[in-house]
Formats: sequence, C-alpha cells, structure tokens
Amino acid sequence: MRCDRLWKGARLATLAADRPGLGVVEDGLVAALGGRILYAGPVAEAPAIDAAETIECDGRWITPGLIDCHTHLVYGGDRAHEFELRLAGASYEEIARAGGGIVSTVAATRAASEAELAASALARLDALIAEGATTVEVKSGYGLALEHERKQLRVARSLGDARPVTIRTTFLGAHALPAEATGDKDAYIEKIASEMLPAIAREGLADAVDAFCEGIAFSPEQVRRVFEAARAHGLPVKLHADQLSNLHGTALAAKFGALSADHLEHTDEAGVAAMAASGVVAVMLPGAYYFVRETRLPPIALLRRHGVPMALATDSNPGTSPLTSLLLTMNMGATLFRMTVEECLAGVTREAARALGLLAETGALEAGKACDLAIWDIERPAELVYRMGFNPLHTRVWRGQ
Amino acid sequence: MRCDRLWKGARLATLAADRPGLGVVEDGLVAALGGRILYAGPVAEAPAIDAAETIECDGRWITPGLIDCHTHLVYGGDRAHEFELRLAGASYEEIARAGGGIVSTVAATRAASEAELAASALARLDALIAEGATTVEVKSGYGLALEHERKQLRVARSLGDARPVTIRTTFLGAHALPAEATGDKDAYIEKIASEMLPAIAREGLADAVDAFCEGIAFSPEQVRRVFEAARAHGLPVKLHADQLSNLHGTALAAKFGALSADHLEHTDEAGVAAMAASGVVAVMLPGAYYFVRETRLPPIALLRRHGVPMALATDSNPGTSPLTSLLLTMNMGATLFRMTVEECLAGVTREAARALGLLAETGALEAGKACDLAIWDIERPAELVYRMGFNPLHTRVWRGQ
Ligand SMILES: [Zn+2]
Ligand SMILES: [Zn+2]
Repeated sequence: MRCDRLWKGARLATLAADRPGLGVVEDGLVAALGGRILYAGPVAEAPAIDAAETIECDGRWITPGLIDCHTHLVYGGDRAHEFELRLAGASYEEIARAGGGIVSTVAATRAASEAELAASALARLDALIAEGATTVEVKSGYGLALEHERKQLRVARSLGDARPVTIRTTFLGAHALPAEATGDKDAYIEKIASEMLPAIAREGLADAVDAFCEGIAFSPEQVRRVFEAARAHGLPVKLHADQLSNLHGTALAAKFGALSADHLEHTDEAGVAAMAASGVVAVMLPGAYYFVRETRLPPIALLRRHGVPMALATDSNPGTSPLTSLLLTMNMGATLFRMTVEECLAGVTREAARALGLLAETGALEAGKACDLAIWDIERPAELVYRMGFNPLHTRVWRGQ
Repeated sequence: MRCDRLWKGARLATLAADRPGLGVVEDGLVAALGGRILYAGPVAEAPAIDAAETIECDGRWITPGLIDCHTHLVYGGDRAHEFELRLAGASYEEIARAGGGIVSTVAATRAASEAELAASALARLDALIAEGATTVEVKSGYGLALEHERKQLRVARSLGDARPVTIRTTFLGAHALPAEATGDKDAYIEKIASEMLPAIAREGLADAVDAFCEGIAFSPEQVRRVFEAARAHGLPVKLHADQLSNLHGTALAAKFGALSADHLEHTDEAGVAAMAASGVVAVMLPGAYYFVRETRLPPIALLRRHGVPMALATDSNPGTSPLTSLLLTMNMGATLFRMTVEECLAGVTREAARALGLLAETGALEAGKACDLAIWDIERPAELVYRMGFNPLHTRVWRGQ
C-alpha cells in the first residue's frame, strides 16, 4: 500500500467504535492518502505501507482533530461593556438603557459588513484552531431577518475558505424575536417557516436548522412549525432545549429525529429517555453554565444511564459564553459537570461529530474518515482535560495536511 | 529629553496611584530609558521627547505587564492521572494507594533533576509570558528537605535567566509535613526555623517566606515560629490563610506585617480588619476555588469595605490549580468572586506588585518604574476580563525591551 503521509512513533487515542474507552494504541501509526485515513492503529497490525513522507512523533499522542459542535461564532460587537456594568452593580434596566442584551448584538451584527463579521469571527476561529479544532459548527441567529441571517451564514461558510477547517452552518432564525416583530412571535415564526428557511435552504446556506425553545424565546408549538419547515426542505434539526426551564423541548427534538438537543439543565428523565430512543445527542455547554453562574446541573447521570451520547461544545457567543477554547470546555465539563476524562475527550471528537451528523466523516481515527488529527505534547490524554489555560498542541492536521 | 523607545498612539490603563480607577489615558504615550519608564501619560502633557525608536500603537491599549504574585510553578510530575481517577469515581484511599496527593508531587520533585524541573516549569512560565506576564512569584514547598527546597528555589531563580521576566522566589518549607518527619510537626518546624530557613537566607535563594496555616498543615503557633525565624533573617513573610477553616491566620499575618495573606475563603471581619490595619494585601486565588469546587466565597465585600488591597493570582500548582493563565484568572475573579473589571485588572498589576513588595518597581505605568508593558489588541480593558480562552496580546515589553 502506498500513502501520502505517515505518522509513526505515536500513541493514539483513536476513539474508534471497535475499541473500548479512548481506543488507546500505545505504539501506533496513522497513514493518510488523499486527505483520508488509510490506516490508524497498532504498528504491529499495520499492512506494509510505502509513504511519500514519514513523520516521527517521538511518542506524542494523536487524537482526532477537535470538533466544536455548537458555536455562535459570527456576530458584531461584543458584550464586554455590559459585563463590566453588571459587575459594577448595574441593574438589568440600566444595562438595557445602555444598549445591552441580545438586542445590542443583533444591532451590531446587522450594522456590520461581511468583511467586518468575517474578521472578528476569524480571530475567534483561530483561537479554536490553535488548540486543534478541525471542524466547527457556526449558527446564525443574530440577524433575525432574511438578509442578515443570510449574511451571517455566508460569512460562516466563508470561514471555511479562509482557513483549513470544516465549517458546518446552522440556520437559527428562531433564536430571539426581532424588535420589528413587535411582540408577535407567531407571525415571526410563520415568516421563518414560509420565507426565511425556504430561501436559505434553496441557496444551500445551512446544513441544519436550530431553534431556542424557552419561555423567553419560542414555545414547543412554534418550534414544531420551524421543524416541519426544515423537514420539508430536507434539513436536519437540533434544539436549544431545557436550559432555563423544562418545556419538554427534548421530547420534541426526539420526535423530529434531531441531531442533538443542547444545554439540558432542566431536562427530566422522560426527556432523556426520549433522546435515547431517538438517538439524539446531548450537547453539554459548561461555558454558559459557568458564565451565567447557573447552579442547576444537566442530568449527566441520567444521560449516562440511558446511554445518550454526550458531546461538549463552547457555545461561543457574546452574551452567555464568550469562550473560544475546547480545552477549557473539557476542563469545565469535568470540573463543573463531573464528566470523566473519556467522556470529555469523546465529547469534543466522536460525539461532537455525531451531533453534527458527521460521524461517517470525522471524529475518530478510523480508516476511511478524513485525516483530521491533533498531535499533542503530553504524557497522557487526561492532561488535555486537567490543565487550565495551557495549550500542549504540537501539530494540527486537517484532511491529511 | 531623550529616550530609547517611545510608544505612541496608544490608550493607556496606567493603574497609576494619582489617577482614578484604571487610570485611563485616551491619547497616551510611554517613553522608556534604560529599561525604566521616563514618561507615561497623555500626549498633551508630555515633555518634548527625542526617541531613538518610535513605535506606533494604532490605538491599542497598553497596561502594565501582568504580575502573577502566587504560584507553585516548579514541581515534578503532574496530577492528571489522579484527576482522571477521581472523576472516574475513585475514593481518596484508592487515589492514595495509586500514589496520588501531595506526596506524589513531593516524590516526583525530589526525584527530578534541576534541568527536568526547569524544563517543565519553563513550559508553564511561557504560557504566562504569552499572555503578558512580566513578573512571576515562585514558591518552593515540594522539596520539604533542605537540599530539595534549595533545588526548587535555584530552579525558580534560573527561570529569570532563561526568560525575560522578573522572578521572585518564596521559601515555603512549611507547606506540608514530609513523610520522614513521621507525624512530628513541631520537630519539622524547628528544623525549618533553625536549619533550612537560615541556610536558604544565607544563600540568598528566597525573597520571602510563606507557610500554610491550616488544620491539615501547620498551626498558628507553628507558623509563628517560622515567621520569627524569617524576621530574624530579614525576610518578609506571607501566608496561605483561612482556605479551609478559620484558624485566624490573617491576624497572625497582620501581626508580622506580612506582604499578603492568600486564599481567605474563611476569613472573618476581625481578620479583615487586622489586614487593613497592617496593610496586608489579600491575594484571591479563584482557580483553586474553581478546581476544588469550593462553595464558600472569600469575603470580597468585607475586604472592599475595609479598604484591603486585593490581588489576583493563578496559584498555579498540580494539586488544586493546574492553571497557567492570568486572563482566565481575571475572568474567574469576576465570574466566581464578582470582582469588578477594575479590581481584576488592578489585581494582576498594581496590587500584585504590592503583594510582592514591588510597588516601587512595577505594577503601574508611572515614571521611574520598570518599563514592563502589555500591549493589547482590544477596544476596551473589560475585554481582558470578559473573554475566556482568548489571548489578545499584541506585544509584551519587559524592562523596555
Ligand atoms: Zn447556543
Ligand atoms: Zn498556594
């Protein structure tokens, strides 16, 4: 067999389905051909491989490239001033008067050009890439009108041209109600379902459709309308569910065969069981939990018991999680949610790929998948979860390069 | 006037004593001569300066170089495996049997060569430096025998030769009881006071002396013996105080005119008042609070009310705070302790300098101080506190270079 590149002398955390736990291989090699993994596993079981280029890894660890399966990476402005005011004791009214809250992000996003949005998003994307991310999901949801949602999604797509990374885009028109809807949520949902979503689907701007199911956002009935439109246009769905209260969003997500249900602080056992039955991935977002000082934990033990796959993501956004580190996200998953090292690492690789419907494509070191690798200067994988504010990435490889 | 280098077109957060709040200057310049600040302030008030080199800052913000005033940066091994076992549900007994706990760090530190200790500490120091740190305190306390404490302190001093950074060393022999002391704390303290501390002082290896005052460590009476020896050798003291219980460590620290008392989760108002009266700096360590999932907050409101200066530090150590980011430390200070943006920024600059007895030397942009700068790609200082896992450092300057 011949290949383009071969990494040898490595320890692998393959996360492969046919190996237990992290799928550790102590004396491993990875061979890539045409951007795909030709072989990943023990040297002892490898076929004879003739490599155009061989890279000696000196015992470093190789994991799948990291995957951030839930971000709001493209937006205008930031909310640092609001953060500052709140710490200084300002009330919500004072912050609203100072132009704070999601309205401020919507206004800044609408006012920004595509070039401006791309520049600020690239800085954040670069922080993720610097820690080994090879796939990043990006949602719209700060435009809240067709032209601005389109603009956000076009910028999101452009990030994948500007950097060697796989970008998956998600249309999140049902994120919040824009001011011009003057409180009429049903009318806005109708506009999403009958105008915005069809246009975005037609233009191929979104790989999936998301919604925010919450008292302060949209009801299950309204979300259902959006999901039906998504189904009519052949787009998979996912849901911001049960973050602040239990509206049974997970059951709704399960009914529509959603890729994932995200947040889940208030999900009960019925919701967990529904997710398990439909194969919905639970996406844990500990950065938001930490940043908004939430005290109610997502039902990790229930999710484990029912065998629901758990992913971990940054939820990178200006209001509730200005976080651009998957390493720190793993530490928060472990420290705050008591997820194990194995759950955390699987959560930003294999399970994150599953949450994006990309499991056939990436998320594990397995023959046939994209050769997306992170090579680390560490002695054991637990270091990636244990340390805070330390990046031991040695090399990142995206599609074999 | 002439100077070596001049930074212009900058916005300054001077943290200067004679300016309110962050000491903001909107159109500022900084001039350096011989590694010291010749002028830092508004362009409009600047004297005529003839600069050998002028750097245009394009509106970037300049703050004092960051200061980490409490670290245990030099140690052997790490505790990632213990972290992993604990998350997997192992009991304390199982972890102890697997060689976990501080004993494992002491054993690894004793077994390591100076070169090995320096290599692992430099990786951590580089992470701090990459975020703008220009001064870092480093404690001993994992040797717990004269030759090994010496070794740790020599390695700490060597870090300042290997990198352009100011290192301050602290002798923390009274960190824990070594196994060979067979439970006799008084005898070990006597050895510290009569043998170890005098030798270390004689060799000039320590700039200060620290102790851990806690039920699981040493009593106030034992700490007093160490502090008396420190005083006899002309070394200032500081204290790990009131982290797990209130043994009135802060009052003891105040009595000895300590530079700082650190942790303080269990400090009461009498302790705070004693600190205020003696000018003891309160060093907040939110990384340890977060990592060990402490729920009792340090008395921030009391410290504010009594006018106790508050610093913020990483407490970088393998057991309770494997943290090497002052930016994340600021975010934790704000998010977990509700410190304001101003308190957080002052906490890693001016107040951290005060906690090291270095206020005359660094910590603010003021004429006469070392020209230690951090230059940031940000629009407002609050961004440094608000973001998580994002490093907007543009340039770091240590002693004018
Ligand atoms: Zn979200
Ligand atoms: Zn400490």
